Amino acid sequence: MRTEAEYRQLINENLEAQLHSLGDIPEKLREAMCYSLLAGGKRLRPLLLLAACETAGGAAEQVLPFACALEMIHTYSLIHDDLPGMDNDDLRRGRPTNHKVFGEGLAILAGDGLLNAAMEIALKASLGMADLRGLRAAEALARHAGVTGMIAGQTMDVTMEGSAPTPELVSYIHAHKTADLLQAPVEMGLILAGAGEPELALARVYGFHLGLAFQIMDDILDVTGDPAILGKNTGMDEKKLTWVALRGVDGAREDLAEHIRQAVDTLSEMPWDTSFLEEITWENLSRVS
Amino acid sequence: MRTEAEYRQLINENLEAQLHSLGDIPEKLREAMCYSLLAGGKRLRPLLLLAACETAGGAAEQVLPFACALEMIHTYSLIHDDLPGMDNDDLRRGRPTNHKVFGEGLAILAGDGLLNAAMEIALKASLGMADLRGLRAAEALARHAGVTGMIAGQTMDVTMEGSAPTPELVSYIHAHKTADLLQAPVEMGLILAGAGEPELALARVYGFHLGLAFQIMDDILDVTGDPAILGKNTGMDEKKLTWVALRGVDGAREDLAEHIRQAVDTLSEMPWDTSFLEEITWENLSRVS
Repeated sequence: MRTEAEYRQLINENLEAQLHSLGDIPEKLREAMCYSLLAGGKRLRPLLLLAACETAGGAAEQVLPFACALEMIHTYSLIHDDLPGMDNDDLRRGRPTNHKVFGEGLAILAGDGLLNAAMEIALKASLGMADLRGLRAAEALARHAGVTGMIAGQTMDVTMEGSAPTPELVSYIHAHKTADLLQAPVEMGLILAGAGEPELALARVYGFHLGLAFQIMDDILDVTGDPAILGKNTGMDEKKLTWVALRGVDGAREDLAEHIRQAVDTLSEMPWDTSFLEEITWENLSRVS
Repeated sequence: MRTEAEYRQLINENLEAQLHSLGDIPEKLREAMCYSLLAGGKRLRPLLLLAACETAGGAAEQVLPFACALEMIHTYSLIHDDLPGMDNDDLRRGRPTNHKVFGEGLAILAGDGLLNAAMEIALKASLGMADLRGLRAAEALARHAGVTGMIAGQTMDVTMEGSAPTPELVSYIHAHKTADLLQAPVEMGLILAGAGEPELALARVYGFHLGLAFQIMDDILDVTGDPAILGKNTGMDEKKLTWVALRGVDGAREDLAEHIRQAVDTLSEMPWDTSFLEEITWENLSRVS
């Protein structure tokens, strides 16, 4: 198994190549898509997919299109989230947001393009496989990213802004807006490695706790973090339904620790050596504790 | 084979059911998606898919998820096209546009949701099939709708607005913005019916001419049409790269007739009775001549 840095390099080398494999994309569209797609970032979702796949006995090289597709879905959601009609953010990963550079029209199309390209790449890869694993992984991607998954969470986040935070509502938003796209890589990685339904169920439980922990950490950092280190503005969530609004900073820290514990516990129930997934879990959630 | 009206009824009855089959969609999101999806319209794309499939020996009932997916892609493109950051239209099919009713944020999400739902529905249907036809049809959908297809055309339409109309540029925009999503249904319908590559190539040629004719007709109607009959504002394309800007109304009428002729000629090369597809072609292009 590779190191985290080696997996990241593999992902970064492949993102543009996967887009390129689709054919002639108009230059301005390609530029707007790549501006956000190649802006760095932790690559947590594709990293998790490759790690999960190799943990369960698969080969990372063979599932790279799916890892890249997942990062494209994540990137499109950020571009659209930042639009004036949504969160109206002007800073992301230390740079101006997509619409600030390319204008709203092209930012909308770049987001649409990345979502569509993700599906096209996953489907082309699936057509080259001898069995239905690719199709099943693509279906999992569409399901977690879709109107009962990530988009459902974004909708509640946008439409319920300003209402009173209840545990049910904030949990729903976090579970879908954030956790769904962290369940997807683990579920997809295991499907592509040929794992069975009991393991896929564990993948979803793990991804749920990882996602909740990740979003709670994000909510805490919006209150306590340093914009220069985070590469984005803080204090943006004042009207948002956050875990800090629900439980305060100290309560949020407790819940964060509990979700990390449950995520790690769930990994230990899997029938493989999950130490690498455990390492990724700790590393990506250690910015507050 | 059914009548056009019966096919349309089949499509209209299934659109909401297909969305419903995905699970619990947040109420506001479902409402915004359905506002545009169920606003009527000619259902030309799903109608073509069902007609092409039955023309080549397939059964309409079995490919309804793909027909509905296609209409969802078409609808999402209209919602996003109408946004203030794109064409900034306030009237569509005789009603206020999506963002006028639900606000920009929800309109962006409703568009994203319809695109994602289309892929999810096509993939779920593909998983239930014994062979790879569904997967191949889903790939064709993603390809024609994507960054080398419809989105490429929309990008050039938005970014080249105001520049001089050349035959190459206007043809590129029309071929991708409009024709790609008319090639998709015929190609998909034939794939789902089990047709071979020579027939799929004819489907793309037919769809190309149908698409060019359709967009040229639209360009003519923007100049000569009655908003009350069209259900949308006219004179909106003044800065746009239209066929009328390129060739004038009379030249555009000539080219329209030529593309209709070539579309019908291409149908006659197919090894089936294509009279129903021919009828649809004439009916949908007869608003100017």
